[in-house]
Amino acid sequence: MVNPDHLNVHVKRAEYAVRGAILLESEKIQREMNQDPSKYPFKKLIPCNIGNPQELLQKPIQYNRQVLSLVDCPDLIDKVGDSVPSDVVARAKDIVEAIGHPNRTGAYTNSKGYAFVREAVAQYIQERDGGVPASADDIFLTDGASPAVKAALQCFSGDPKVAFMIPLPQYPLYTATLAMLQMQAAPYYLNEENRWSLELSELERSYQEALREGKEVRGLCVINPGNPTGGVLSEKQILDVCLFAKKYNLLVLADEVYQANVYKVNPATGEREKFVSFKKVVGSYPELKGQPLISFHSTSKGITGECGRRGGYMECVNVHQDMMDMLLKLASVSLCSNVGGQLMMKLMLQGPKPGDASYDSWRRDCDGIFESMARRATMLVDGLNKIPGIRSQPIDGAMYAFASLDLPPGAIEAARARGMAPDAMWCMDLLRATGIIIVPGSGFGQRTGSFHFRTTILPPEDSMAEVVELISKFQRDFLAKYGGGKARL
Amino acid sequence: MVNPDHLNVHVKRAEYAVRGAILLESEKIQREMNQDPSKYPFKKLIPCNIGNPQELLQKPIQYNRQVLSLVDCPDLIDKVGDSVPSDVVARAKDIVEAIGHPNRTGAYTNSKGYAFVREAVAQYIQERDGGVPASADDIFLTDGASPAVKAALQCFSGDPKVAFMIPLPQYPLYTATLAMLQMQAAPYYLNEENRWSLELSELERSYQEALREGKEVRGLCVINPGNPTGGVLSEKQILDVCLFAKKYNLLVLADEVYQANVYKVNPATGEREKFVSFKKVVGSYPELKGQPLISFHSTSKGITGECGRRGGYMECVNVHQDMMDMLLKLASVSLCSNVGGQLMMKLMLQGPKPGDASYDSWRRDCDGIFESMARRATMLVDGLNKIPGIRSQPIDGAMYAFASLDLPPGAIEAARARGMAPDAMWCMDLLRATGIIIVPGSGFGQRTGSFHFRTTILPPEDSMAEVVELISKFQRDFLAKYGGGKARL
Repeated sequence: MVNPDHLNVHVKRAEYAVRGAILLESEKIQREMNQDPSKYPFKKLIPCNIGNPQELLQKPIQYNRQVLSLVDCPDLIDKVGDSVPSDVVARAKDIVEAIGHPNRTGAYTNSKGYAFVREAVAQYIQERDGGVPASADDIFLTDGASPAVKAALQCFSGDPKVAFMIPLPQYPLYTATLAMLQMQAAPYYLNEENRWSLELSELERSYQEALREGKEVRGLCVINPGNPTGGVLSEKQILDVCLFAKKYNLLVLADEVYQANVYKVNPATGEREKFVSFKKVVGSYPELKGQPLISFHSTSKGITGECGRRGGYMECVNVHQDMMDMLLKLASVSLCSNVGGQLMMKLMLQGPKPGDASYDSWRRDCDGIFESMARRATMLVDGLNKIPGIRSQPIDGAMYAFASLDLPPGAIEAARARGMAPDAMWCMDLLRATGIIIVPGSGFGQRTGSFHFRTTILPPEDSMAEVVELISKFQRDFLAKYGGGKARL
Repeated sequence: MVNPDHLNVHVKRAEYAVRGAILLESEKIQREMNQDPSKYPFKKLIPCNIGNPQELLQKPIQYNRQVLSLVDCPDLIDKVGDSVPSDVVARAKDIVEAIGHPNRTGAYTNSKGYAFVREAVAQYIQERDGGVPASADDIFLTDGASPAVKAALQCFSGDPKVAFMIPLPQYPLYTATLAMLQMQAAPYYLNEENRWSLELSELERSYQEALREGKEVRGLCVINPGNPTGGVLSEKQILDVCLFAKKYNLLVLADEVYQANVYKVNPATGEREKFVSFKKVVGSYPELKGQPLISFHSTSKGITGECGRRGGYMECVNVHQDMMDMLLKLASVSLCSNVGGQLMMKLMLQGPKPGDASYDSWRRDCDGIFESMARRATMLVDGLNKIPGIRSQPIDGAMYAFASLDLPPGAIEAARARGMAPDAMWCMDLLRATGIIIVPGSGFGQRTGSFHFRTTILPPEDSMAEVVELISKFQRDFLAKYGGGKARL
C-alpha cells in the first residue's frame, strides 16, 4: 500500500532503454515459449541488446578463472596438482599473501579496494600511457563502471541548475543518472556522417545553449570508444576536448570501458590504431596542467567480458581533495566493492608473462577473442549496409553498430497510433518476428526525425550471417507493409 | 581543479562513523608502524570497528568456498578428483546447469539476480517463517544490504520534507543515506535500561514530534537484531511495531542482516530463542493484511561472514507495483549485482543436507562458529561490566556491545578543548594507547549527555580476554588522568 504519489518523480521519469520495454517483452516471449515452443516463428531469442559476451557463450579467459578459483578457496591451492598450470598456482599464492591470510579472502577490503590491486591498476595505466605517472592513491575500485559514474555525478548534485554535458547518442546510464540525481543534461551531438566524430564547434554550441537556458555546467562526459556509436577519438580530438574543458573549467568524465576494443586500421600503416587515453593527453600537454579528469574502466568489456563480476575502477586526476574525501565517504557507506570484481580487475590488467606456463594459451585466448570481434564488427557493418533503408558507420571500436533506419511515413503514422517511438515499434516488431533483441535509437538520443537501432557484434561468428539475414528479411517485409522510401516529418 | 564550492552539500554533511576519523587515524598509525614498529606501545592493531569476521581470521565455511570455486572455473569440475567431496562437485554442476552453460558463469544476470537464486531465497524465507508464502518475484538480489537500503529510500526522495523513522542508536548507513538523498530522519530512541528495547510509546512520541516539525513520514526503519545495540525483538514487539506502521500508513524497512545471530536464551526453557521475522508477523496476523514491508539480508553476517562478496537480498512484501517498477529500474541502471555474491547467498541459505558427504564437517563448521560467537558475546559483556565507568547490556544478538561510558567532567572539558566529541576522544586515545579500533557512540546517535562505544565480539576467543584487559587498563589510566566519578553536564 505504498502510495504511488509519494514515489520519487525523478526516478520515475528516468529512462534506461538497454533494459527497457523491449527486454521486458522478450522475457514475456520467453515465458510463452517455455509453455508453447511453437508460438513464435523462431526457436530461440538472440540477445543483442547489451554488451554481455558470455551470455552469447564467449569463452571466459581460463587463466583469470583458474586464479580466481584458487583464491576463492585457498585450501585447493595445494590440492589441484597438475590440473592447473604452475604459474596459476604461484599467482594465486601471491594474491592470498597480498590479502594477508587464507582466512581473510572474503573480508571487506579497504573502501577504495585492495591496495595491491590499486597498485596494479596504477602500473597498468602508467605503462599504457607511455610513462605518464599514475598513483594507487587516485584509484577507486568499484562494482563495475556504472556505480563509479553515479558516485562522481552525485558529488555535484543538490542544485537543479547543475548540468553535465553528454554526447548524443549516449549510453543511457548518463541521462538516467542525471535525471535520478535531479541534475540536467547539456547534450552535444556526435557527427554521424563522419564516423560519429566529436566536433569542437558542436561542444561550443551545446555549452552556449546550456548557459542561455540557465544551466550551470560543471563537467563534460565523453564515451571513448563510443557507446553506442563505435567511434574512436584521435589524440588531436582528445586534446581539443580537454582544452575546451579547461577553457570553461569543466571536470572531464571519460568513460573508457571499451579501451581494449579498438579495431580501426590506420590506412597509412595498415596497422590497428592504438587507444589513446584522456589521462595520457592530460598528463602529456603542459597547457592541460591541473585539468581535472575522472576515467572509468571495467572488467565487463574488452576481451575479458566478465560482466557479472562487477569489476571496475575510476582514476581521479587533478581532483580537489574535498571531492576525493566525498568519493571516499560514498565508497565507505557501501563498505567496499566486491572482492571477485577487484581480483578480476588485477588479472585483466596483469596477465601471465612470456615464459610463464600459461602464457601461450592465454595469448591465444586473448588474440582469438579480439580478432573474432574485429571480424564480426566488419561482417555486421557490411551486412547491415546491404539492407535497404539501413545504414551503419564503420565500427572503429566498442561492441555495437548504431545504424540509421529510413522509416516510411506509413510506419511513422502506425507507430504514432500505437503510442510508440517509430524506431521502438520497429525493434518490437523485429523481436516478435525474429527473436532478435536490440535497442531502439530513441533510448540513446538521436537528432529529431532520425531513427536508429543499436545491435551488438557479439553473436558467434558462425551465426552473424544468420542474424543479418533475419534483420534483412524482416526489413524487406516491413517496407513492403508500410511502403518504402524516405521518411518525411 | 574542481571548485569545492560546487560539491554536493548533502553528501558533504553526511557522516559515516564506522569508517570515519578513528579508522583513518588507525591507517596512519599502521603506516607509521611499517616504518618504525616500536613507535606505539602495541605490536598490532585490533580492528573491532566493523563486523568483518574474516579480517579477524574467522575461517570461511569450506563448503561454500569449494562450490563457489568450481562454479568460477567450471573446467575444474571434472579435474579436482578427491580433493573436494562428491556433493560439492554435484552442487557445482547443478549451479552451472541452472546458469545455463559453463561459458555463461560470468555474464550479467537478470537485473533482479539469477532466477534460481531468487527461488532459493523464497524457499528459505518460507521455511524460516513456518510456511508463510514467499515468492521469487518479490526478491531482488543486491551487492550486500547497503545498496538495497539506499535503493528503497531513493524511491521516496525528491522532497526535503519526506522523513523515515530510524532508531537511535542506529547503524549510520541510515542517517548517511537519508542525508545524502536530502531526506530527513525522525529518530526514536531505544531503551538502554531494558536491553535496548523498542517501545511503542517512544515510536508514538517520535512520530508526533516529526509531524509537529512539518515532516512527512513515509516509513519506519527497524534493525533487528540490533546494530549497534545487540537487542532482539519478540514477536509481540514486532506485531506492535507493524500495527503502529499500519495505523500511520508507513512502509516498514526491516534490516534483518543479523537474523542468524541470536544468542539470547529463554530463561523458561533454557533454549536459545528463535529469530522472528517481520515477514512472518505481517503474513500471520490478519489485521496486518496489506502492510508493506521490505526486509534486508546479507551474506556478510550470520556465521557466513563473507563481507567482501557483497551478497544481499531484499524481499518486498505488499509493495505497490509502481515502486517495484522503480526498484527494477534502479537495479537495471547498475545492470545486476555481482554473481559471486548471488551464489554465496544461495549457498548460505541452502547448505548440504544430512547424508551428503560434506554435511558433517559443514555442520561442525557452522556450529563451531556460532557457539564461539555466543561465548564471546558473554565474555565481552562480563569483561566490560567489570571495568569502572563502563556498562554493557547483554548481547542478545548481532555482533556488538554498545557500552555506556561514564566520563569525568575533566575528560569532557578536555574533549571540548580538542574539538572532539567526548566519546570520540576516548576512542582515539584508546586506539593510540592499545591499538584497539572501536567506534564512538556519537557516530551512532545517543541521548544527549550519554556516551558510548561500539566494539565487536569478533576477536578470536583466545584474545578476547586480552582485548578486555587492554580496555580495562586504559580506562583506569584515563580515569586517573581526568578524575573518576560520574559526568555532569
